[in-house]
Order: sequence, then C-alpha cells, then structure tokens
Amino acid sequence: MKINIPETEKERVVIVGGGFAGLTLARKLSRQDFQVVLIDKNNYHQFQPLFYQVAMAGLEPSSIVFPLRKAFQKDRSFYFRVTTVTEVELAHKRLQTPLGICNYDYLVLAIGADTNFFGNEQIAQHAIPMKSVSEALYLRNRILSDYEKALSTVDYEERQGLIDIVNVGGGPTGVEVAGALAEMKRYVLPKDYPELQTDEIDIYLLEGGSQLLSGMSEEAGEKALQFLRELGVQVMLNSRVTSFDGAEIQTSDEQRISSQKVIWAAGITGNRMPGLPEGAITFGNRIKVDRYHRVEGAEGVFAIGDIAYMEEEAYPQGHPQVAQVAMQQAKHLAGQFEKPSAEWTPFRYRDLGAMATIGRNKAVVDLPKFKFQGFFAWLVWLFVHLFQILGVKNKLFIFLNWVWNYLTYDQSLRLIIRPKQRGEEIT
Amino acid sequence: MKINIPETEKERVVIVGGGFAGLTLARKLSRQDFQVVLIDKNNYHQFQPLFYQVAMAGLEPSSIVFPLRKAFQKDRSFYFRVTTVTEVELAHKRLQTPLGICNYDYLVLAIGADTNFFGNEQIAQHAIPMKSVSEALYLRNRILSDYEKALSTVDYEERQGLIDIVNVGGGPTGVEVAGALAEMKRYVLPKDYPELQTDEIDIYLLEGGSQLLSGMSEEAGEKALQFLRELGVQVMLNSRVTSFDGAEIQTSDEQRISSQKVIWAAGITGNRMPGLPEGAITFGNRIKVDRYHRVEGAEGVFAIGDIAYMEEEAYPQGHPQVAQVAMQQAKHLAGQFEKPSAEWTPFRYRDLGAMATIGRNKAVVDLPKFKFQGFFAWLVWLFVHLFQILGVKNKLFIFLNWVWNYLTYDQSLRLIIRPKQRGEEIT
Repeated sequence: MKINIPETEKERVVIVGGGFAGLTLARKLSRQDFQVVLIDKNNYHQFQPLFYQVAMAGLEPSSIVFPLRKAFQKDRSFYFRVTTVTEVELAHKRLQTPLGICNYDYLVLAIGADTNFFGNEQIAQHAIPMKSVSEALYLRNRILSDYEKALSTVDYEERQGLIDIVNVGGGPTGVEVAGALAEMKRYVLPKDYPELQTDEIDIYLLEGGSQLLSGMSEEAGEKALQFLRELGVQVMLNSRVTSFDGAEIQTSDEQRISSQKVIWAAGITGNRMPGLPEGAITFGNRIKVDRYHRVEGAEGVFAIGDIAYMEEEAYPQGHPQVAQVAMQQAKHLAGQFEKPSAEWTPFRYRDLGAMATIGRNKAVVDLPKFKFQGFFAWLVWLFVHLFQILGVKNKLFIFLNWVWNYLTYDQSLRLIIRPKQRGEEIT
Repeated sequence: MKINIPETEKERVVIVGGGFAGLTLARKLSRQDFQVVLIDKNNYHQFQPLFYQVAMAGLEPSSIVFPLRKAFQKDRSFYFRVTTVTEVELAHKRLQTPLGICNYDYLVLAIGADTNFFGNEQIAQHAIPMKSVSEALYLRNRILSDYEKALSTVDYEERQGLIDIVNVGGGPTGVEVAGALAEMKRYVLPKDYPELQTDEIDIYLLEGGSQLLSGMSEEAGEKALQFLRELGVQVMLNSRVTSFDGAEIQTSDEQRISSQKVIWAAGITGNRMPGLPEGAITFGNRIKVDRYHRVEGAEGVFAIGDIAYMEEEAYPQGHPQVAQVAMQQAKHLAGQFEKPSAEWTPFRYRDLGAMATIGRNKAVVDLPKFKFQGFFAWLVWLFVHLFQILGVKNKLFIFLNWVWNYLTYDQSLRLIIRPKQRGEEIT
C-alpha cells in the first residue's frame, strides 16, 4: 500500500522529524519548487528549551508547542503526516510507514535524539526523562501526585522519599529544573502544603563531571553552582548514579540517597532509523554526514540536527547537539537545494553563544565576545527565548505567564490533568 | 487505619465534591469555626460551562480549572485530600476512603452527576461523554486524530465516518458543541486540511424532544435552532438514538447515520454513594433532601447541588441541575451552620435566568423579565461566564484567548498531547 499523497511532476523531499532542524528546512523548502512531505509522530513542533517550565507548572504545554499544520496552511505542495518511519529502503528510495510506503527523491533525516540511560535498564525503568512535552507533563503530574501522597504517609522515611527530588545531569536541563524546584520549595509549597515540613524537602543535583554546564565557560559553570547553592540545592559534582531501584539511589562516590523521584537529564542518544548502512552510525548513535549533510553510502539522503554527526575543523568531535546548530544546518541544506552541487559550499557553524537560567533574576550567558551572569543575563535569556518561540500568540501568552509568575511568586498551573480514555477511570 | 488529619476540638465538616456546590460551601465554612475537610478525586475545581471550548481547542484545560489547594492557602483549619469515598457508615458517622477512615460530625454530599447512557451499554461503550475536563480533552484529541486518520483513508464511506460528527442531546452542551464544530468546519478545517473535502463534513444534532434547550423559553429554543441551521448543522428533533456500534447510529425515527464519533450529552444521572438509606435515592439517582438540605434518615448528612433532589412549591419536580442552584444551596447551607436550627428558614431558589451560546455573535438569553438573542446576548454570555470563573489569571487568559480567537477566526490549540506514562510509547 502506498501512502495517500499524490505523486506530481515535482521532485519529492521527505523530511522526517518536525523539530528545529526539520521544521526550519520544511518552511524554507515549501517555498521552493519541491513537493515537501513532513513526517512526525506528533502533530506539533516542540520548543525544547522550555520543557522544564511545563514540568514546573509555570507554562502550559500549548504555549511551547505549535501545531505543525498551522505552520504550513498556505503551502499547497506541502503534505504533513502524523506517523513514524519503520524502515528506510535505500535501494528503492522509499520509506516504510504504518500509513503505507512513501517514495522519496530526497530524504532528510532530522529525527533528533532521546534520553540516554547508558544501557542501565533499571534506571531506564524508574527514572523520569524529560525529552518531550509529554514527558514534562508526566513529571508535573508525578511531582504533584507525590506531594498529595505524602500527606497521607505517616512513616517519616517514606514521606521524605516522596518529597525529595534528585536531578541527574548538570547540563542546562538539570540546572534549570533544580533551580525551579528550589524556588517552588521556597515560594509555593509552604502555601499549598502547610501540613508538610516543606523546609525538609531536599533537592539534589548530581553531575558526573567536575563542572556544571560543561558545554559553557568555566565562569558560567561556577556561577551556576553558586546560584544553585544559594537556592539550597545540594549539588554533588564528580558523582554518577550507579543504581536506582525506585526508592534509593547509589552513586559512584558511595553515597546513598533515599528518593522515589529521579529526573534524568544525564545525556542523549540518537534516535534509530532502521535501514541505514551500518557504517553511517557513529558516536552517540548519530548519523555521520559530510560537510554537505550527505549520509555516506545512502544516495539522496541527508541528516541534520541532533542526529547528524559532522566533523568540522573547529569541531573535530562533531557539533554540540543544540537548536542553533540544527537551524543553521537546515538553512544551509535548504540553500543547497536551490543550486547545483558544483556551487555548494561546506557547512560552517557560527557559534552565537549559550545560556542557561537558574531562577528569578539568575542566569548565565556566554557570548563569543564576553560573558555575564545575574539579572541582566536573566533578562537576555527571557527575551532570546521569547523571540525564538514560534507564533505570536505563544509569545504573548508566555510573556504574560512570566510576568504573572514573577509578580506573584507562583506557578499557578498545579493541575493533575490527563485526557480520559474511554472506559478508563481517572484515579 | 485513620486518614492522616488531626482531630481537634472543633467540629469537623466533611464535604465530598469540589464542584460549584462543594467549593462554595467550603469557602464559606472555612471562615467559620469548623474544621473543614474537602474530598475530591481531582486536585482542581472544574468550570463545567466551558468544557465545550476545551474540547473545541479554543481554551486550555488550565484556564477553566482551578487548583483547589490554591483556593484555601490562607485557611489553617482546612484540609484537602485527593481521594474517593467508597462508603458512608452512617451508624459510625464516618467515611471509608482509600486513604483511611474519615470521621465526621457533619457530612455534606456534593458529589454531582455524571453522563446518563440510560442503561444502554453499547452506547456507553462507544459514545464520547463530556462531563469532565479530562473527557473534553479526550474529545479534542479524538477529533484531531480522526482528521489525521481521514487523510490516509482512501475509502469514501470510511473517511466520511471519520470526519462526520453526531451530537446527541439538545441542551446547552449539545447546542454549544454543534455550533462550535460548525464554525470549526467553516473557518479552521479548510486551512488545516486542504486535502480533505471539508464542505462534505456533516455535523448532526439529535434531540429527543420537540425543542432545543428545553430548560429555556420556546423563543430561545427556536432561535437556537435557526442559528444552528444557518451554520449548517443538521438538527433532527424528536429523534432519539436507539443504537450505536461505533460505526453507525440508528434512531427512533428510523434514520441511519454513518459516523464513528457520537458526542453524548443527552442526560445526567446522580453519582452513587454507597451506604445511604435506600429510601433516600429518588428520580435520576438523586438524593432526596428537605428544604434544609437534610438527607432523610441520615443524621448530620446534607446534600447540595446536582445530586440533591428538593421539592419546592415552584419546583415540584426538583430544581434544575445547574450551577446557580448549586451555589445558592451552598450559601444557604453555610448560613444554617451559623445558627441554631430553630432559626433556619427553608431554601428558596431564585432563578436568575439561563443562557446558551451557539457561535460567533450568536447566543440566547432568558432573564426573568425579558428574553433576547443574537449579538448582545452573546456579549452578555461572555461577560457573565468571565465573571463567574475562578481566579484573576484565569479570567485574564480566557479573555485574551477569546479576543484572539474572535479576531483570527481560529482555535489555535489543535494539539494532540497526552502526558507520557513511563514505559509507554506515544503513538
């Protein structure tokens, strides 16, 4: 069975994945003379940098995702399908999907990365990842449910296990979640749960290396550490989780922590795409590409974004897996589609800097020319993220939410809501 | 095991249900000299009149619900538990709950009503109810998923079954959903789904009686009918659904409609509370009370809101099951708790009117003194609902959403989002 998309005389570019890379490319290409087919398992684009605010009940999921159909309402040779790709058949230039076979003239893999549990099945089973808005919502529901449960838990140890939270991974996500939790502990929980000893809540942040925010400057890492400690977060450096059974964490430096909640942001691994030549897969499960985004040994196939591994002089071990790289690669690849390959120029990443936020008035910013931290960095963080989010309405609603939360010291979306399934009782 | 709530010298009032009745009463009582315990299965209060806008992707669930803890942050002799009541033990003046036994001095049942399928198991299994924000979200996800599915459905009949929608019940919910769907068909779907023949989408509204909005005036019902027909809704009066197997609807007037989606708003039935004397349960599974909200044969037990059945001179068959009645009963009961029973006065319902909205600039309003329809009625509807919703932030965000949707002719929240369960793949 073929997928139900008309075959026209236009060449067909199939893009798999509607993240920063796939969406940017699809928008550029839909204005060129191609038939563009975008495939994603969700009907929306997700703005990853703000997942943690959804998890912390500060923003609604709808504010940080954007319906993919809406982004292409005006493009008549654009087709979007909510589905997955089960296999690439390179020899036939086609994809297998649950909706049928999808031929391509060009294939762009922008399938991104998912949480890496480094092969530890036990941790994968019990820890909470945060690589999608669905997972962020799960975390929100879980935190709130556990506090409700704690109210009826008389045993001291068990109650502490419900209210303490361990963050693993000192990258931006770990730092941002730990900071937000510390502020929730200070400003929100004492009001919502006067029955609990909220000052007894412990928030941990474990980082395997010797520095937080290892992708940024040493200065940024040290300042983030200072900010977190001021907020009362127990930061443990050079500490890796070796086991977690759902109740107790053991670490490489022989520590034991009792907690039922481990938020896992310790690393990512490329999503799998069956059918690619084995030699194309490299470190971190990424797909190896040349400077023109081409996958070796797979004609007409490109890879961009977190899934792509490209060596550049300045980045001999590949680019950082961040939104900036994804968008620059997408724009560069879109440019290639406009001209004959003889005119192509190799991709070169232009680092615009990096930033992370820790809490109210507290952020760290590394720009290529200078670095700064604190209140001004926090303002810069807010406006850069507001500017990047897709959709005028999203910008407006996020801005209003931020102003509201800032003035009231409150994240007001503390709701445990799940869509009800037919025949299912919500408990 | 006892529920983990301290027993003090104050008398304990246990309120079951945080809807309009329970929440209003809890707020009043928490300022009196009682220990108030509120029990609800959700951690939020739901604003039922706007469920349909959540289902139609016009509002976020968070805008129309309110965290119950937040409503009582300042009350120190108030206790809230997210749980259910499995049985009342009248002889012991206590409740059985999964969290343990909960004693009461006074018990107020404000447990409301749920969808009534009139004993038809087949319909209950296949039709979609809309009596909670979770169900409204399910409906939203279902409508959007079915349109995605329709894109890959080549068979004409099957595709129509996915895109056609049948609403059952001509009360406010049925009328409001049908009207909103008709506007979605006109303004949103052609842009999102240019591949579908959106003008072929059929929207039905089936009503068993001879009039829409039977709780309102004949004038309102007729105008609503006219508005809906102008919007292209196929309204069928005197038509009851006799069977629905998930693919085809059969009606009492021998019609057959092919549709996979039936939205069921044809009636409600009181929620059950095991342990009450049998004689206390009456028509519509409601709990019979006297003019002082007392449940006969159950000392210290009261019932208010949709679950309560009280005969008043002007309402010999009980009050309508609407928010106004619930709130007036709650206030009246709160007043009773302030004074000795000798000073009690019988409850008397003051009808403030009723209203329903059909679409942009189209609503019907019945006030005690006069009736009107159209644009001005629509404005009145908007402001009355905005005024009633709990929370300044909710008011602000709903207002902005409404302005935005009105100006753009768009419901922008067309997202199929579910919180991910651990180990579960979102497909």
